[in-house]
Amino acid sequence: MEHFEDLVAAYRTLAEHGVIDAYGHVSVRSPSNPKRYFIARSLAPEKVQVEDIMEYDLDSTPLDAKGRDSVSERFIHGEIYKARPEVMSVVHNHSPSVIPFSVTGVTMKALWHMASFIGDGLPNFEIRDVRKGTDLLVRDAELGAALARVLGGSAATLMRGHGSVTVGENIARSVGRSIYLELSARMQMQAMLLGKDITWMDAAEVKANMPVQDYKRAWPLWREKALAKAKADRR
Amino acid sequence: MEHFEDLVAAYRTLAEHGVIDAYGHVSVRSPSNPKRYFIARSLAPEKVQVEDIMEYDLDSTPLDAKGRDSVSERFIHGEIYKARPEVMSVVHNHSPSVIPFSVTGVTMKALWHMASFIGDGLPNFEIRDVRKGTDLLVRDAELGAALARVLGGSAATLMRGHGSVTVGENIARSVGRSIYLELSARMQMQAMLLGKDITWMDAAEVKANMPVQDYKRAWPLWREKALAKAKADRR
Amino acid sequence: MEHFEDLVAAYRTLAEHGVIDAYGHVSVRSPSNPKRYFIARSLAPEKVQVEDIMEYDLDSTPLDAKGRDSVSERFIHGEIYKARPEVMSVVHNHSPSVIPFSVTGVTMKALWHMASFIGDGLPNFEIRDVRKGTDLLVRDAELGAALARVLGGSAATLMRGHGSVTVGENIARSVGRSIYLELSARMQMQAMLLGKDITWMDAAEVKANMPVQDYKRAWPLWREKALAKAKADRR
Amino acid sequence: MEHFEDLVAAYRTLAEHGVIDAYGHVSVRSPSNPKRYFIARSLAPEKVQVEDIMEYDLDSTPLDAKGRDSVSERFIHGEIYKARPEVMSVVHNHSPSVIPFSVTGVTMKALWHMASFIGDGLPNFEIRDVRKGTDLLVRDAELGAALARVLGGSAATLMRGHGSVTVGENIARSVGRSIYLELSARMQMQAMLLGKDITWMDAAEVKANMPVQDYKRAWPLWREKALAKAKADRR
Repeated sequence: MEHFEDLVAAYRTLAEHGVIDAYGHVSVRSPSNPKRYFIARSLAPEKVQVEDIMEYDLDSTPLDAKGRDSVSERFIHGEIYKARPEVMSVVHNHSPSVIPFSVTGVTMKALWHMASFIGDGLPNFEIRDVRKGTDLLVRDAELGAALARVLGGSAATLMRGHGSVTVGENIARSVGRSIYLELSARMQMQAMLLGKDITWMDAAEVKANMPVQDYKRAWPLWREKALAKAKADRR
Repeated sequence: MEHFEDLVAAYRTLAEHGVIDAYGHVSVRSPSNPKRYFIARSLAPEKVQVEDIMEYDLDSTPLDAKGRDSVSERFIHGEIYKARPEVMSVVHNHSPSVIPFSVTGVTMKALWHMASFIGDGLPNFEIRDVRKGTDLLVRDAELGAALARVLGGSAATLMRGHGSVTVGENIARSVGRSIYLELSARMQMQAMLLGKDITWMDAAEVKANMPVQDYKRAWPLWREKALAKAKADRR
Repeated sequence: MEHFEDLVAAYRTLAEHGVIDAYGHVSVRSPSNPKRYFIARSLAPEKVQVEDIMEYDLDSTPLDAKGRDSVSERFIHGEIYKARPEVMSVVHNHSPSVIPFSVTGVTMKALWHMASFIGDGLPNFEIRDVRKGTDLLVRDAELGAALARVLGGSAATLMRGHGSVTVGENIARSVGRSIYLELSARMQMQAMLLGKDITWMDAAEVKANMPVQDYKRAWPLWREKALAKAKADRR
Repeated sequence: MEHFEDLVAAYRTLAEHGVIDAYGHVSVRSPSNPKRYFIARSLAPEKVQVEDIMEYDLDSTPLDAKGRDSVSERFIHGEIYKARPEVMSVVHNHSPSVIPFSVTGVTMKALWHMASFIGDGLPNFEIRDVRKGTDLLVRDAELGAALARVLGGSAATLMRGHGSVTVGENIARSVGRSIYLELSARMQMQAMLLGKDITWMDAAEVKANMPVQDYKRAWPLWREKALAKAKADRR
């Protein structure tokens, strides 16, 4: 059940960092069956406990709902797991400094080593390219698949007027990338205000840094603090 | 007394989110008599308890003051309840990122789905259009009625050099809208700094999103935390 | 000893609001002798207790030091009390959003009702007009008197590359003005980024608002929380 | 062991102020042997305890690792201690407001007295001048020595797309300088947005202020709070 605890820790860590409000979510692919994933029921992230974790197939149908409500945007997760076999964890959030990029067409680029995964630019999902007049939510497989296509091979994608998605080969990466994407957005805004010419990380630096940038010194700390809080909340 | 506890939770939630300082207030229309509303006595919001809630008629005259002081700007609430029969809750605040919009004539518009209620623009109440040389406070029914006219059918209005008002069909909406209006103001500022052309939510998206944007995953969390704090404060 | 507790509460409230770091200070004029004032010894504000309060004459000479170190910039306080008989409390701080105004020659003006005391502009103390090559600190009576002259009849003055001073007819006002000056500085920056034409409070509005803007709904809350913390720190 | 406790306090203080995330580090030169320095093992800063402190020679070889992992960027510390005999403490961090300066070529200058150590400008280490295609980390002595050369006689240097380093004749200074460098970066950005002409501290003011700016009123407070937390964490 370690991956259940990882997931509880991820929800609470993202809430603690202000990356997700009451509406974000994190999932992990099942370690024993690549055709399944786990995500919490519809609930404020900072309240998630192990018993709130539900299992889904890749069409995002719950396997054993037991009366629990599914989050409406679970198709983001299922469709990305279909499209990206190496991805083991997905985060969707409304991280506030990223959203202004999503509505201005300004490309986020790798500005510092902690967010080298941004590389030479992140894509931006425009839901209107798929369907007009939506409430912006990714409520079905068609929208989820379109989002996965825009994401392509990237580590993250913005979603116009909505938020962003980060993915990783493990949960430390999907969570760490969400936290540092928010920080990188603030830095890029500030850099753009300071001067016209920004020195981005070059392709060789991104290539050298990205594989080692695993947030593994941070993750055990985040996990420990979050699970201590989850335990305290039970009392 | 559930609506009294809702109100206690609303005051404390707004203070916790930094949306109201010592001077904001929240009201609910009486569920049993549409000609009455409830609001706390003049007190710092983070200290409000059930016994601080007072009842008023729509002319904002207290029904049973018991020596408690009324907030001077209660006419904001009474006059809006007169003008908008469907409104069941009103928040007035000094939410800091909204005020710069109120003094520059820059229109706030719906930039992201969590604040779709902003629609194609919020009005801005200029008190000088009604009366010159005031202290900016809405201290009587005439000013309150003028504010209600500027609000019109909108979900919120700015108040020049002062703050803003949000309304809702229930308290989760008036509170949630205040919190997300503040966030939306920050995002719009950042977007305006990043680029000239902002992709706003279009009319069809606003129409689709606004009815479902009810903050109902957030409200039970906010309420529970606030009431736990209110209870702890009694000890 | 109520004014001693007021002072303890003021130090801790300003630290809690991020208005003073380890280096700000607050004083009150003695209620029994207008030629005396009280201020804490050289100590981080969030640690101040009643026994850290020292008494000074208006030349800023301690009356009964008992081996306690005086803050080097106490002359700010003494010289303002000499020049402004109605002033009963003075705050000096390094409030971070105010300092950028002090080095750019941009005048802070009254933008919202909670900071109406700013009026049609705050002065800015340039220490080089009095003495060149200082460490910027107001270390003697000559510098303090020059600062008091720049302050004139205003409720606050900026200090170039250093910070600011606020004054009041009581401690609620000097403290409240420091807190809302910081907020007003942030709002003015944001308004200036949003648009060229800012609608300031007009002279009649400032005249109407300033006398009633006494921060008296906030002060008892701040005081109670700060003194509870001071008491807890003794255990 | 007082310097071990100083180091524990420094790690935790920097984390508490948001100056270091999970990846920054602080060192002190050994008080008994100038050819040695102490730094914590690879660990999140807010968890550091006395037993996590390791000793290194100036080539950054651990003397008694006992199976503990060294931080990969320790060469920053060793090479600066070689080059600057008077330096007794070094901090490396990813302080977020400083990084935008590092990628825009905008020089940080002394804007206020709490950060007078910035003087007439801080250098910026461009790792590509030494080696292309790195992951930006200072992973060996050659890179560390190059960084030390760029630092020269300054109190701090930026590192392009990465962070910064501050040094001091004691730990209060290296820590205090990191905290106030972050604040100064924010203020300089704000000042640049407010106006074109910034009044910097002049050379005589820097010369007068820098020797007295020792953060000694702040350090005992920071230390006490951090060590109380370290003690509580053991329970």
